[in-house]
Amino acid sequence: MRQFTQQISVKAQGRRLYDITPQVLNWANQLGLNTGLLTLYIQHTSASLLINENYDSDVLVDMEAFFNRIAPDGDALFIHTVEGPDDMPAHVRTALTQTSLSIPIIDGKAALGQWQGIFLFEHRHMSATRRIIMHVIGE
Amino acid sequence: MRQFTQQISVKAQGRRLYDITPQVLNWANQLGLNTGLLTLYIQHTSASLLINENYDSDVLVDMEAFFNRIAPDGDALFIHTVEGPDDMPAHVRTALTQTSLSIPIIDGKAALGQWQGIFLFEHRHMSATRRIIMHVIGE
Amino acid sequence: MRQFTQQISVKAQGRRLYDITPQVLNWANQLGLNTGLLTLYIQHTSASLLINENYDSDVLVDMEAFFNRIAPDGDALFIHTVEGPDDMPAHVRTALTQTSLSIPIIDGKAALGQWQGIFLFEHRHMSATRRIIMHVIGE
Repeated sequence: MRQFTQQISVKAQGRRLYDITPQVLNWANQLGLNTGLLTLYIQHTSASLLINENYDSDVLVDMEAFFNRIAPDGDALFIHTVEGPDDMPAHVRTALTQTSLSIPIIDGKAALGQWQGIFLFEHRHMSATRRIIMHVIGE
Repeated sequence: MRQFTQQISVKAQGRRLYDITPQVLNWANQLGLNTGLLTLYIQHTSASLLINENYDSDVLVDMEAFFNRIAPDGDALFIHTVEGPDDMPAHVRTALTQTSLSIPIIDGKAALGQWQGIFLFEHRHMSATRRIIMHVIGE
Repeated sequence: MRQFTQQISVKAQGRRLYDITPQVLNWANQLGLNTGLLTLYIQHTSASLLINENYDSDVLVDMEAFFNRIAPDGDALFIHTVEGPDDMPAHVRTALTQTSLSIPIIDGKAALGQWQGIFLFEHRHMSATRRIIMHVIGE
């Protein structure tokens, strides 16, 4: 059994979904493993991970619209406002989505479904460099 | 250390929660492992995974009611409507729940709590065959 | 490759976030592993796991406020009310957050980001002892 780790850095330029599927698969599918487990972990609390449809980009627009409605900037509910009106909504949006993802490796490839893409979901409006740790165990 | 993989197919017949606990445990608990890690992964973007109470079926009705309220069909917010009024709500519901689940195997069994069941959460009204990949590593 | 398991018990005294970062790291970072995968699993359906900001405690107050608004106690939507007005909201809040978390171990330490803490999110008002299973595989 072998392990591999790698880091992805994404220069996010504001609130939206960033497709990281190519970076993930280019690394994970060339490790020479037949069977294994791929884990993605994002080291932030204002950005998260999401697997969703990668075919029609309108899905990404609508996803963003939904989270803006459910956790609007400048919400009077929040007292943690020191970093700006999008700070606490960013933490809420992170809580509602994923900090870690686990994807089996089957027949040498991460077993994504046909329409699945892996996204970094940036929740702040400012630019930020986001780090995602990848870990694989298998053989 | 050994690995095992298996696929579950569920013929979902419309939007609701489908209990897949028996299929998961029947497979994972008979692998002859004492300690390990079980991962479930669903290869879809309009159906998801959920661990929740499996005792009172009213919980499943209420869970469905909650997600219908938070992401109603035909929501005027959405522009991705080509596949029908339940398509984008299905992607949102998937984003709010789980695409992957990790469950330790302890003393030869997946360590579910007493009241926990594992569910496929189908978010479309149409019938669909859904695939869940299971991966186990342990010894 | 080696495996380790451990259980954390938290005596939760009502609805709020409980920081379990010290218990998790004290155990995981002393196993003598260089590289591995840490999995946390909570065996309940009215309490969940969350990674979020651990610096400003106002974030925890606001997080709680958000979930109270989105899934209020005594919601007339719900029929599963036998265990009290906070029971079904607790299941919904569990569904919207995490039952399992996966964190890579890199250079001998669980790879949490600088501002990330690991929390038990108790969703019931009553006191309860909550069990979290930890599993590590690595070498």
